[in-house]
Amino acid sequence: MLFEVWAPQAGQVELLVAGERVPMKAEPRGWHRVECDAAPGSEYGFSLDGGEPLPDPRSPWQPDGVHGLSRTIDHGAYRWKDDDWSPPPLPDWVVYELHIGTFTEQGTFAAAEARLDHLVELGVNVVEVMPVNTFSGERGWGYDGVDLYAPHSAYGAPDELKAFVDACHARGLAVVLDVVYNHLGPAGNYLGNFAPYFTDAYSTPWGDAVNFDDSDSDEVRRFFIDNALMWLRDYHFDGLRLDAVHAILDTSATHFLEAMACDVDELEQETGWPRVLVAESDLNDPRMVSDLERGGLGMDAQWSDDLHHALHSFLTGETEGYYEDFGSLDQLAKALRQSFVYDGVYSEHRRRTHGRTPREIPGHRFFAYIQDHDQIGNRAAGDRLTHLVDTDALKIASGLVLTSPFTPMLFMGEEWGATTPFQYFTAHDDPRLGRAVSEGRRSEFASFGWKPEDVPDPQDEATFMGSKLDWSELERETHAEMFDWHRSLIDLRKQHEELRDGDLSRISTSFDDEEDWLLVRRSSFTFACNFSTEERSVPLAGEHEAVLSSGDTSVPDGKSVVLLPRSFTAFRAK
Amino acid sequence: MLFEVWAPQAGQVELLVAGERVPMKAEPRGWHRVECDAAPGSEYGFSLDGGEPLPDPRSPWQPDGVHGLSRTIDHGAYRWKDDDWSPPPLPDWVVYELHIGTFTEQGTFAAAEARLDHLVELGVNVVEVMPVNTFSGERGWGYDGVDLYAPHSAYGAPDELKAFVDACHARGLAVVLDVVYNHLGPAGNYLGNFAPYFTDAYSTPWGDAVNFDDSDSDEVRRFFIDNALMWLRDYHFDGLRLDAVHAILDTSATHFLEAMACDVDELEQETGWPRVLVAESDLNDPRMVSDLERGGLGMDAQWSDDLHHALHSFLTGETEGYYEDFGSLDQLAKALRQSFVYDGVYSEHRRRTHGRTPREIPGHRFFAYIQDHDQIGNRAAGDRLTHLVDTDALKIASGLVLTSPFTPMLFMGEEWGATTPFQYFTAHDDPRLGRAVSEGRRSEFASFGWKPEDVPDPQDEATFMGSKLDWSELERETHAEMFDWHRSLIDLRKQHEELRDGDLSRISTSFDDEEDWLLVRRSSFTFACNFSTEERSVPLAGEHEAVLSSGDTSVPDGKSVVLLPRSFTAFRAK
Repeated sequence: MLFEVWAPQAGQVELLVAGERVPMKAEPRGWHRVECDAAPGSEYGFSLDGGEPLPDPRSPWQPDGVHGLSRTIDHGAYRWKDDDWSPPPLPDWVVYELHIGTFTEQGTFAAAEARLDHLVELGVNVVEVMPVNTFSGERGWGYDGVDLYAPHSAYGAPDELKAFVDACHARGLAVVLDVVYNHLGPAGNYLGNFAPYFTDAYSTPWGDAVNFDDSDSDEVRRFFIDNALMWLRDYHFDGLRLDAVHAILDTSATHFLEAMACDVDELEQETGWPRVLVAESDLNDPRMVSDLERGGLGMDAQWSDDLHHALHSFLTGETEGYYEDFGSLDQLAKALRQSFVYDGVYSEHRRRTHGRTPREIPGHRFFAYIQDHDQIGNRAAGDRLTHLVDTDALKIASGLVLTSPFTPMLFMGEEWGATTPFQYFTAHDDPRLGRAVSEGRRSEFASFGWKPEDVPDPQDEATFMGSKLDWSELERETHAEMFDWHRSLIDLRKQHEELRDGDLSRISTSFDDEEDWLLVRRSSFTFACNFSTEERSVPLAGEHEAVLSSGDTSVPDGKSVVLLPRSFTAFRAK
Repeated sequence: MLFEVWAPQAGQVELLVAGERVPMKAEPRGWHRVECDAAPGSEYGFSLDGGEPLPDPRSPWQPDGVHGLSRTIDHGAYRWKDDDWSPPPLPDWVVYELHIGTFTEQGTFAAAEARLDHLVELGVNVVEVMPVNTFSGERGWGYDGVDLYAPHSAYGAPDELKAFVDACHARGLAVVLDVVYNHLGPAGNYLGNFAPYFTDAYSTPWGDAVNFDDSDSDEVRRFFIDNALMWLRDYHFDGLRLDAVHAILDTSATHFLEAMACDVDELEQETGWPRVLVAESDLNDPRMVSDLERGGLGMDAQWSDDLHHALHSFLTGETEGYYEDFGSLDQLAKALRQSFVYDGVYSEHRRRTHGRTPREIPGHRFFAYIQDHDQIGNRAAGDRLTHLVDTDALKIASGLVLTSPFTPMLFMGEEWGATTPFQYFTAHDDPRLGRAVSEGRRSEFASFGWKPEDVPDPQDEATFMGSKLDWSELERETHAEMFDWHRSLIDLRKQHEELRDGDLSRISTSFDDEEDWLLVRRSSFTFACNFSTEERSVPLAGEHEAVLSSGDTSVPDGKSVVLLPRSFTAFRAK
């Protein structure tokens, strides 16, 4: 098989495979190549100028962790069973975000596969998997990946990941993978030994930025785009969620994201089924999700943190950190109409004007969620909205998100109102790094008034274990009721095409921030929320019937309706 | 009058005016304001928290240099005589770049005004003035400006600059001003004392970048946009040339350049005459000069360094620095067809793929030139193309540029083949800075094999004096002949609308890089260049007449024509 590595600064590169040192041939533009017999599963590494062997930057498998040797695999060997697969179109998506390590007790691809029928029962049709690339230590969220081509061994072997995707497809579930192209993790990152993967021209929260536009950046861009194509082609993923793309700094005439979108388009043609690119973007820039032909970056969708923040701070009253920019019913209504609350208005938190109106962007290009891994896990104790508001408020929140013109997304366990936290956990082997992470976490939250001993230690295994879902909760009545509520909402969305219509010009809201009620109108539907602890009479002209409600409501009389305290009701014009 | 300054970090700001200290009132978002009687011409400054008075960041006049106090002026007092002014439309432009300090012996606005009839005689219709903002020391190029609202006093008072613009308009000459928004000069920059004008999130060749997208950037953006509007409104400039916009790093949803373009559009509506924004961009990104409605940044035009480099390296054979990326006739032809040679192809010099095809961008959105202040002055000895190639080659070069579909631009003196260099000169008062600049220059060129004593010292007044145009050259025959050549070419362009047609799809080239000839076809015109030292027979189908030639040519016989060695001829189909 062909072994190759890009190492433009190295004089001599040797392949170490099966105990042998094989000199590689230097080829143009810094590539080194050699043909060598090696069975799948062979250990190998590259030695630069006589140095110790290092793992392959494009290693497909790191069973011995980030510092170990790489292993060859044969992507052609897996027998796929999803020949007839075609994913649901984006406007139909209902997404379920999960973390392999904590979704199940065992924390493996195989164990996750065994829980897929639960998702089918719930009614979601897309699974979004937090990063599965190889990172330092057994436990982690995955955003510290360093072997970006290799599935994390604690979750299972490459074939087990393929089997997981295959099993999803067999059940009609599309699968999106979370990938991180804006930085690499702090341990086991050998990329810099091989080539100028990083640049000091820009700074990011994680240090030097990835080199997307400086000298030798062609190969760096190729490294990440090839990674995207590998997951989509060799693992049959239906899309990628791109972490924090605002930290991908690139002044090239063709932005990295655009270049990736073009190559993914080609892959779609080649494989005959569409793939979806979803950006996590903090820019509130409609260009992110505009088509390439219109000068956009060609992402199919992006996460809508503004809607999350508007909903979270309105429901909880929290004003810390970025929540200082949110909290009013007015903002929540705006977020429900167009996703971006900050669309060219001044942000106190950012101390600058932020964003731009997302004119003509279809709603399904925004992912809407009450919570996600970050919004839970970046809290000191990783507490979910379940811990902060009552069941009534949770039902209103999920009602709004699951009937929105956006692409709704749940975070694992949310469907039954899981009480387990999702905390920040790591397992760095290097004790100095481990200590730094633990202390960093404590000091981060000290500024918010947290005592050090109250902040869970990321390095402590108990923090990880406590973040696993407790599936036995589902058997308890209140949780089963919450599950039914979510299932009913998803079902309502499935049954009515007008609820999957992303035309944002067809949505309108009215609200009263004294009386604390909100109406969202979409075609024949009116979604009525009463946030107050009193009954509220709200205007509802014309004949309507209540098709789904979190509590009882009075029958509409053609002019108004009385909403029970803290309730969500879906009305439909007769 | 109202005095105001943005100083968000200062507790107490005082105005010092006419020897008095007047406390200013802190207002929202970090502004401090006070109304105070002061006649135009009053000295003033601002004291932050009891400190020494500093010049106003928006000082309109710094007669005592960058460290002196500011002076008030009344922009309403000047009596403009250009009421009926309307500038030529961009496709008609022929631009003349000049530096006030070296254009004339005296180096003032008033002296430059006295030379305007020369430009009228030449036939150009736009004057582009190198930066006139106040910079450290008397002499300099102007790119080290620190008082961006104040005309440099060595050139004259604000009213003298207005009189210069007025005199241009009286002669039908539009005036473009070079402004620098990507960095401030190294001496006299007090902006950082007042507010976070800079950010360490990005690095630039000049250190910390200007803060266009971080906290408090709204006011920083306002500072620069207001500066642009001031020159256009209060000084009647017809446009701005924006220095090195690739160093304006901004990830906002609305890019700084776009925001500026919008505000300039409004000013156009208000004043009733169009203004032109011309970017110096190293990005080869068509988005720079695409309309706002098409997702562009809304610049009207940009400089075309690729055409310069292709022409320069082909004519001189130079391969140092960025010229290593150029040199072939093929590249010159490509540049003449579409400006960008690097349109998505690999650049050896940059070690990466560069640029993007400028599809559908009209040619007049690219400024074309044989030389400019940078391409001359950034050479060790500031030598012009005149010093490097013979008169024949100069004539071919100017023939190609002045008959191109782009907006042609000459650098002062080029029209007569001036032999004076344009060297890099400074006059920093601070001896340490002065020494650093002198030594920096010497060490920069040492790497290209220059002996220290052969590199002109920027701080030496002789370097400046030697860079002044020698107008007596014009009286000599060879120079007068060159002047006539330029005048004839400009006249040809003026007489034929088809030569001002910017549709790049209508231009084609053919060439032979063995025989060293090139044909450029535009509508009924064919421009024929023979770069070789021998006669060349080139194909020219159909009936043509030679309408302008740098040497004699044979009469076309309907199939071909014989070009004299090293000649440029404009043929027109009969």
